[in-house]
Amino acid sequence: MSSQPTISLLTDYGNRDEFAGVVRATLRRLAPAADVIDLTHEIPPGDIRAGALALARAAPWLASGVVVGVVDPTVGTDRRAVAVDTSAGLAFVGPDNGLLVPAIERVGGGERAVVLDLAPSAPPRGGEIDGGRTFDGRDLFAPAAAHLANRGALEELGPHIDPAWLVRLDISDARRGSEEAARVDVVVWWIDRFGNAELNASPDIIAGWGDRIDVGGGCTVTTVRRVGTFADLDHGEIGLLVDSQGRLALAANRAAAAERLGLVEGDALWIGRSTGEAGC
Amino acid sequence: MSSQPTISLLTDYGNRDEFAGVVRATLRRLAPAADVIDLTHEIPPGDIRAGALALARAAPWLASGVVVGVVDPTVGTDRRAVAVDTSAGLAFVGPDNGLLVPAIERVGGGERAVVLDLAPSAPPRGGEIDGGRTFDGRDLFAPAAAHLANRGALEELGPHIDPAWLVRLDISDARRGSEEAARVDVVVWWIDRFGNAELNASPDIIAGWGDRIDVGGGCTVTTVRRVGTFADLDHGEIGLLVDSQGRLALAANRAAAAERLGLVEGDALWIGRSTGEAGC
Amino acid sequence: MSSQPTISLLTDYGNRDEFAGVVRATLRRLAPAADVIDLTHEIPPGDIRAGALALARAAPWLASGVVVGVVDPTVGTDRRAVAVDTSAGLAFVGPDNGLLVPAIERVGGGERAVVLDLAPSAPPRGGEIDGGRTFDGRDLFAPAAAHLANRGALEELGPHIDPAWLVRLDISDARRGSEEAARVDVVVWWIDRFGNAELNASPDIIAGWGDRIDVGGGCTVTTVRRVGTFADLDHGEIGLLVDSQGRLALAANRAAAAERLGLVEGDALWIGRSTGEAGC
Repeated sequence: MSSQPTISLLTDYGNRDEFAGVVRATLRRLAPAADVIDLTHEIPPGDIRAGALALARAAPWLASGVVVGVVDPTVGTDRRAVAVDTSAGLAFVGPDNGLLVPAIERVGGGERAVVLDLAPSAPPRGGEIDGGRTFDGRDLFAPAAAHLANRGALEELGPHIDPAWLVRLDISDARRGSEEAARVDVVVWWIDRFGNAELNASPDIIAGWGDRIDVGGGCTVTTVRRVGTFADLDHGEIGLLVDSQGRLALAANRAAAAERLGLVEGDALWIGRSTGEAGC
Repeated sequence: MSSQPTISLLTDYGNRDEFAGVVRATLRRLAPAADVIDLTHEIPPGDIRAGALALARAAPWLASGVVVGVVDPTVGTDRRAVAVDTSAGLAFVGPDNGLLVPAIERVGGGERAVVLDLAPSAPPRGGEIDGGRTFDGRDLFAPAAAHLANRGALEELGPHIDPAWLVRLDISDARRGSEEAARVDVVVWWIDRFGNAELNASPDIIAGWGDRIDVGGGCTVTTVRRVGTFADLDHGEIGLLVDSQGRLALAANRAAAAERLGLVEGDALWIGRSTGEAGC
Repeated sequence: MSSQPTISLLTDYGNRDEFAGVVRATLRRLAPAADVIDLTHEIPPGDIRAGALALARAAPWLASGVVVGVVDPTVGTDRRAVAVDTSAGLAFVGPDNGLLVPAIERVGGGERAVVLDLAPSAPPRGGEIDGGRTFDGRDLFAPAAAHLANRGALEELGPHIDPAWLVRLDISDARRGSEEAARVDVVVWWIDRFGNAELNASPDIIAGWGDRIDVGGGCTVTTVRRVGTFADLDHGEIGLLVDSQGRLALAANRAAAAERLGLVEGDALWIGRSTGEAGC
């Protein structure tokens, strides 16, 4: 086993500017023994929900250590910044705006939390910049993460709060109303680069509905085939498969299902037992 | 010399989603002493040929260790997954769909190969996800690469196959039919971010043809100048130079030659001794 | 403290192709103990000014070690390649085209400089490629950086030159002509992924002008409010804030100010005490 601590990063800083690079540089400066793992920096700007879902998807596979999440459209206001320790070997650092909670809950929940209240510790080369309060990834979250990666105590970062008080987003997995229900409302949670559209639904939602499933939005209904993987689908066909998160996703074979169906993240749909009828 | 093993990654997972990040995280979890070098994750989705060419271009410069390539449109089917050892200090891991072979051949060829048949070794935090078979980068290739990076034996990953039986793509460098030939059919193998269009042709193809070369596609012929580097070209001029791979590339000075010529990867062209005449 | 040297990278190679990856691989091969920090590789192709500004913005936060900058449209010509040591614990490597100087000056200036004149040291696997002179990041700058990261002497890289002779760009911060001046010409230096438009101006430029500032370009004048952070702005409102570099930036709340104002990098504007009148 390596003795090098790990800091995992997920932000909406993008790879175009040097924002993410400056966070990496700051971590290197303040926690030189740590290794940084970039999860992604391409969360759409300010999209807390997309960031929260991505962080939660990644959480089970993270190496023990510190996780920094930054999607922070209210940076510089009095929104809280927090660090949250879990029993799973992961400590999370970021804004208290809902971004971190789904990931924290997926690995078993927060055990202790503090509000970041640390004095700036490591002035940049040439002395403090009289800059604005717009880059907490560099100025607050990276120093806090470095402190934890350097085996500093959580308590030294600020006063305790109850982890139950962390801000939560209104996101939840779809549920089938009853055993007999033939239709369930779902939401498109994620459209990935391949154009797969992950729904907030696990396969038990469609248990017993056979291998033809209706997918509807407004008056449009598309009947899709339940398959095991992309290559089971014919050219141009849309299917429903279980993705790498164990969730249902609309997919195509070497094509972008979301584009064909005109879907964007957040779209409300329904899925149901196929009736062979039109929707409205 | 560092004693840290190196794992080089090339995929079509993109940097937008957390796919590549989760592969990095998984490698960190399973092979904590290894360092990961990202070659690129922006191979066009499912474009095995583009991935194979990129991996082959990078291969001579890779640090000794494990190389993971994932462009895998038939993930989840019975396509084979393989690990291939070479005498060049590189072991390749990925799908057996042609992606790895050009790189393997460029470093001297495969010595031993196995079909990956390993049991899932490291369940994620919180236990196995009942997920689909769509993310072998995380679930199969990363564990196999970690095994090799941890100095595990190739044989422990699965049964041997003959490296000669690996799936091959139909890609080959252009050849000049005879010493007298005045025209050679070529293919655009790569258009890079600068808009340079690399051909499957080395400079000996055009030996003796002087410094004006005709480039044709359909009935269109463009006469270009052979130059040493971009800045040798005038504003708006298209030229032919030897790129960093030792191949001929159509290029412009601070402009995108491929865009000006309307080229995309895979286009069939011909190059020939300039005649000063139109093409058809 | 880690004993691993740090090499920071900023280039216009992009993340799409394997260029940046091959530079990372080459550094790993030649300086296996070094850690590489990617600042960004998405500087617009050949945009020396954008690269110079980004590198200067990052410089104060870099870990001690070697910094490689590559935005190099005249690669392969007789433009000089240099390495420059500073008293700030950073040594810079790159083309002598203006890219490095703003960063060098921001950390206190160059102490010693050499023109790179090193013989190719580490042939790729399989022997030298008879390639063109188009990829100095791989063939020249990475080997030079590895030499320095391996604690090699600057002098071994080539003959000394006076750091004062390095090529400089014509970029400078705006100044207010006099205490009484009510208008200052400024330039848009950077539009980031969020659409914030950083000006070449510090807040003392607008001292005493109150919290309404006129921003003009041609005959168009927009009156904006001076605010502390993004969330202080109303929906659709444009504001002026001090960004993380201590410079004035036009910004919006969860929206792209530059897009609303139709700005691109390099645009000339003026800012002035608000008069409530139209511009022309």
